[in-house]
Amino acid sequence: MLTRLVYQSAKDRAAHHLDRAGIFLKPEEQEEIEVADFGLSDLARYGLQLFTYVNTERCCAKEIVLFPRQTCPEHRHPPIPSLAYAGKEETFRCQAGSIYLYLPGTVTSEIGALIPRGEEQNFTVYQEVYLEQGDQITIPPDTLHWFQGGDEGAVATEFSTTSYDEHDVFTDARVQRTTQIVD
Amino acid sequence: MLTRLVYQSAKDRAAHHLDRAGIFLKPEEQEEIEVADFGLSDLARYGLQLFTYVNTERCCAKEIVLFPRQTCPEHRHPPIPSLAYAGKEETFRCQAGSIYLYLPGTVTSEIGALIPRGEEQNFTVYQEVYLEQGDQITIPPDTLHWFQGGDEGAVATEFSTTSYDEHDVFTDARVQRTTQIVD
Repeated sequence: MLTRLVYQSAKDRAAHHLDRAGIFLKPEEQEEIEVADFGLSDLARYGLQLFTYVNTERCCAKEIVLFPRQTCPEHRHPPIPSLAYAGKEETFRCQAGSIYLYLPGTVTSEIGALIPRGEEQNFTVYQEVYLEQGDQITIPPDTLHWFQGGDEGAVATEFSTTSYDEHDVFTDARVQRTTQIVD
Repeated sequence: MLTRLVYQSAKDRAAHHLDRAGIFLKPEEQEEIEVADFGLSDLARYGLQLFTYVNTERCCAKEIVLFPRQTCPEHRHPPIPSLAYAGKEETFRCQAGSIYLYLPGTVTSEIGALIPRGEEQNFTVYQEVYLEQGDQITIPPDTLHWFQGGDEGAVATEFSTTSYDEHDVFTDARVQRTTQIVD
């Protein structure tokens, strides 16, 4: 849950990050930036700001903004049998700032991300991939991943198959994908 | 057919267009820019410069550079039954400059593109869509289209399903999708 004021301020801040990264959005597109708090009501630690260029039945493209040290909680994009959908495949390309991304595999001994205190149980994969401007990675469907913006935050473009956010599976049972806004 | 010198110079020029549009490519990525002359050996009139971020079995993303008044010949992306592929769906988002794009539908009476003299038979669709920075359009599979850069050329990002260029169908029978380079 976010207040309307916090929501709008995060939107404005995300628009500024995108602009500084050289990514052009029209004023009406800036207004469409989504702020996701994942139902955790703690945007400084958990959240994602998103602008969706296109999301058809076949493919999708978005800009993603992470504020400094903001974390996207661990999740995966499973197959959706009822839609004959193999699960979302996504490619992140870092456009500005830096991202600490984690995937299944060999545990990185000293990770760059800061795990929110007391929340260790919500992070189970620890193979670190560090992304800076121009670095990109493709994540196969149904693969657990979580990521955090570096000290200056980050902007990344996501090229993917269709997004069905409501089907995402999060490790933290408290997560709700839809952000509630209150006055 | 292009000489190696012309090919390299078009690549360098495309890298410059991308840089000026605020699109970051690493030096090694700039080297991977493709120049397509569509086998017409006339890059000033016909061609496309491309950088592919990703092209998996499910989705694809590219940057496209058009030099001033350079034309991508009319073509469509048909279904490919042997691959159980419905045909390429593509979204163009103009990042810089301007694009005159043509689709089937109501003929635009005074079009903005300049049709290469004596080549009218190779252009059959004339519903104009004019794209400037931040404008975008999604083109369904199997839809004839052609486009031309405006007086300053253009940079566009393409978000699409998988590219199988070799299956594209061009109106101009002379077109060959693979560019031959000669010394």
